[in-house]
Amino acid sequence: MARFFVTASNIFGGIAYLSSSDAEHIKALRIRNGETFTVCDGNGTDYSCVLTKMDKEGAEAEVLSTAPSVGEPTVKATVYVAFSKGDKLEHVVQKSVELGAVQIVLFPSRRCVARPEGSSLAKRMVRLSRIAEEAAKQCGRGIVPTVTSVSSFAAAAEMAAAADLALFCYEDETELSLKAAMESRLEAKTVSILAGPEGGFDNKEALLAKETGMLSVTMGSRILRCETAPLVALTSVMFASGNL
Amino acid sequence: MARFFVTASNIFGGIAYLSSSDAEHIKALRIRNGETFTVCDGNGTDYSCVLTKMDKEGAEAEVLSTAPSVGEPTVKATVYVAFSKGDKLEHVVQKSVELGAVQIVLFPSRRCVARPEGSSLAKRMVRLSRIAEEAAKQCGRGIVPTVTSVSSFAAAAEMAAAADLALFCYEDETELSLKAAMESRLEAKTVSILAGPEGGFDNKEALLAKETGMLSVTMGSRILRCETAPLVALTSVMFASGNL
Repeated sequence: MARFFVTASNIFGGIAYLSSSDAEHIKALRIRNGETFTVCDGNGTDYSCVLTKMDKEGAEAEVLSTAPSVGEPTVKATVYVAFSKGDKLEHVVQKSVELGAVQIVLFPSRRCVARPEGSSLAKRMVRLSRIAEEAAKQCGRGIVPTVTSVSSFAAAAEMAAAADLALFCYEDETELSLKAAMESRLEAKTVSILAGPEGGFDNKEALLAKETGMLSVTMGSRILRCETAPLVALTSVMFASGNL
Repeated sequence: MARFFVTASNIFGGIAYLSSSDAEHIKALRIRNGETFTVCDGNGTDYSCVLTKMDKEGAEAEVLSTAPSVGEPTVKATVYVAFSKGDKLEHVVQKSVELGAVQIVLFPSRRCVARPEGSSLAKRMVRLSRIAEEAAKQCGRGIVPTVTSVSSFAAAAEMAAAADLALFCYEDETELSLKAAMESRLEAKTVSILAGPEGGFDNKEALLAKETGMLSVTMGSRILRCETAPLVALTSVMFASGNL
C-alpha cells in the first residue's frame, strides 16, 4: 500500500491534503480517484484514505479509517555517524530508517575525508532528509526520522552519552563485546550508536567518548567497513530488544 | 595489515608464492621488499610474511610465523539469495562475507526480474566470487566464502533445510519472529538464511519452504528491502551466537 507523510495540521474535516510533490508521486504510482492509500501524520497514526481530487497544486483524499502506525520499534535508537563520501552516508541513512532508527546525527571526526560546511552541508542535509523520508514511506514507518548534524565530535559524544545505552563502536576495543554491552542494559528505552569514519577514531576521540560514559564496544573479530558498523549495531539493538 | 589468500599448496619450504594478480595488488599498496603482510591459506591459518621478491609473474614472501585466523565465527552460516539486479546482489555478497557467512548461494525465484543463464550467469559468478575474495581480504576472514548458484528454488530450499537452523525470511509471515526462531535452536552450528527477490516469494514457494522443514520467520513490522533482509538475519545470527 502506497504511503505518504503529511503534518497533522493537513488532515482536518475528514480530508487529508497532500503537497504538489506527493501529488506527483501519486501520479507516478498511477493511483486514480477512488483508489486507496495510506497517509501517516508522522506522529504515530495511519489514515486509510481514498483519492478524491488531484491537480498540479496537490491532492485531496477522504479519510476512511485511522489506526496506530505499526512500523515503530519499542526502543528509540539514534545513529551518530561520521561524515564520509556521499554514497556511503546515503546508504547508512536509508538503512538506518529501514531498521527503525528515530534520528540520524552526522558529525565531523579527525580522520574524516569529507567535512562539508556552509551551503555544501546544507544541500547535503536536504538530500539526506529526502532519502530518510523516501525510506520511511517505503518501509512503513510511523514517523519520518530526522537527519541533523553537529559541528564537533565532542558535541556528538555528549548528546549520544545521554541515552540509556550509549554504544561507541570502536575498532581498537578488545574487551567489551556489543552483546555484553547490550545485556548490561536490557531495560534501555533509548539507545545511541556512534560510529566513525573510514580511518577509524583517533585515540583522543576514544578517550573523550569513554569520559562521557559511553560504552566502547567491539563487534567481533572481522573488520567492519565504516558503513557497515552502525547498521550491525542497530540491527543487534533491534534484535535484542525484541523488534525483529 | 594487508592480506592475501593463497592455496595451502603454494606455501612450502618457508616461502609463500603469490599470483601475478596478487603481485599487482602488492605493488598498488606500495609494499616493498622487506615489508610484511599476511598470507592466509583459506583454511584457517594466517602466515605473517615478509616480501622477498616480486616481478610480473608473481611474488614470493618468507614466512616469519603462523597463527590461527581469527576472523571466522563459531557458527557456519550460508546465505541463499534470489537473483536480483547487479548492484544489490553485489552488496549482499560483499556484506555477507564481511558479516561472516561461509557461503552464498544464488537461486532463481518466480518473481525474479533477472535470471541470468549460460555465459551471462558464468560471467556474473566470476564477478561475485571476486567481490567475495576482496571482501574476505579486507575484513580479515580465514577463508574465502564461496559463491555458487543452483538452478531452482526447490534445490535451494532443500539444501538450506539441511542446516541445524534453517530460516525462511518471509514477508507474509506473522507468527514466528526471527528472535523466537533463533531462541528455539540456540545450539545450532550450521544456519541457513533464505531470502527472496524484490517482489517477495509467491505462495507456492512459501509452502514448499515450509514442507522442507525450514522455519518461516518475520523480521518485524517494517518492510525490509530484498537486499536488507538477508543481512539483518545474518547479523542477528552472529549476534545471538556470540560472534558480535
